[in-house]
Amino acid sequence: MSTLPVAFSDTFYKELCIKMTIGAWEAQNKRLDTLLSKLSDEQLAREVAPGRNSGVYLLGHLAAVNDGIIVLLGFGEKLFPWLDPIFLTGPDKSGLPKPAVAELKKCWLDVNAALSGHMANMEADQWFTRHTAVSEADFEKEPHRNKLSILISRTSHQSYHLGQMAFL
Amino acid sequence: MSTLPVAFSDTFYKELCIKMTIGAWEAQNKRLDTLLSKLSDEQLAREVAPGRNSGVYLLGHLAAVNDGIIVLLGFGEKLFPWLDPIFLTGPDKSGLPKPAVAELKKCWLDVNAALSGHMANMEADQWFTRHTAVSEADFEKEPHRNKLSILISRTSHQSYHLGQMAFL
Repeated sequence: MSTLPVAFSDTFYKELCIKMTIGAWEAQNKRLDTLLSKLSDEQLAREVAPGRNSGVYLLGHLAAVNDGIIVLLGFGEKLFPWLDPIFLTGPDKSGLPKPAVAELKKCWLDVNAALSGHMANMEADQWFTRHTAVSEADFEKEPHRNKLSILISRTSHQSYHLGQMAFL
Repeated sequence: MSTLPVAFSDTFYKELCIKMTIGAWEAQNKRLDTLLSKLSDEQLAREVAPGRNSGVYLLGHLAAVNDGIIVLLGFGEKLFPWLDPIFLTGPDKSGLPKPAVAELKKCWLDVNAALSGHMANMEADQWFTRHTAVSEADFEKEPHRNKLSILISRTSHQSYHLGQMAFL
């Protein structure tokens, strides 16, 4: 964010709100990092509950979803589009071969590092521009469908699956 | 929020950011409402996964946590402080008697209605004042520990447990 804001000005609060939203997203990423550091590959391969998704699937799913943020925020193309059929459009038991856990963990970390880098270079007001999945016409009527909303919804989504992965 | 903001001004974006944060919290409340409308009392009484918390416990837990927001945002006292020993400080298998599901659901709805009412009366800048669990001295150094941060963290917390309750 370019200029030093005056404390308690609207600019300051606007930027603070954005920082808090990014912070909440990063906190969820860190929580998964911490969980991953405690789980063996065998534990991660288990279903989080009987008949439910495996930890590996959910890790790939969250990596694929975060990879999608790169596109939605207009930063560029997905880093690992091959994750999608296995972990996003396909279910856990699709029969598609899954990559090794070490590779998946690398995808997860690489995507988040790329996103954090891009976000650090964003001007505050860019967060209030439309994300790439909403049309200009719709965005004009619904200005809350902006880039910041993507981060807010993805934070909740991640937390949802973290609650499930905690059972591992 | 008092005055009509000019679109794309810092005031507008600041208020939009707050609205989006409240909206995300309300969306999680609504998701639980929807889930509750689909579950029988018997289903809700079950453990979400073998050996884990029951749906009833998590409902009471989320009601108690939202009740705590009333205090943290300085709106007043908890509506249902008797929830705390059963659902917040105590575990599911504490042996304490639990209220009927219908009563718990009413607590959940009453707390959220009270909160929504209070929030609708807040001025935008009040969201950036300190919550009641942080000291003035700490808040001066860490202005992100404000009322809005409570809502952000509680939204993630709720989503975390919703992911578990979805297994019911």
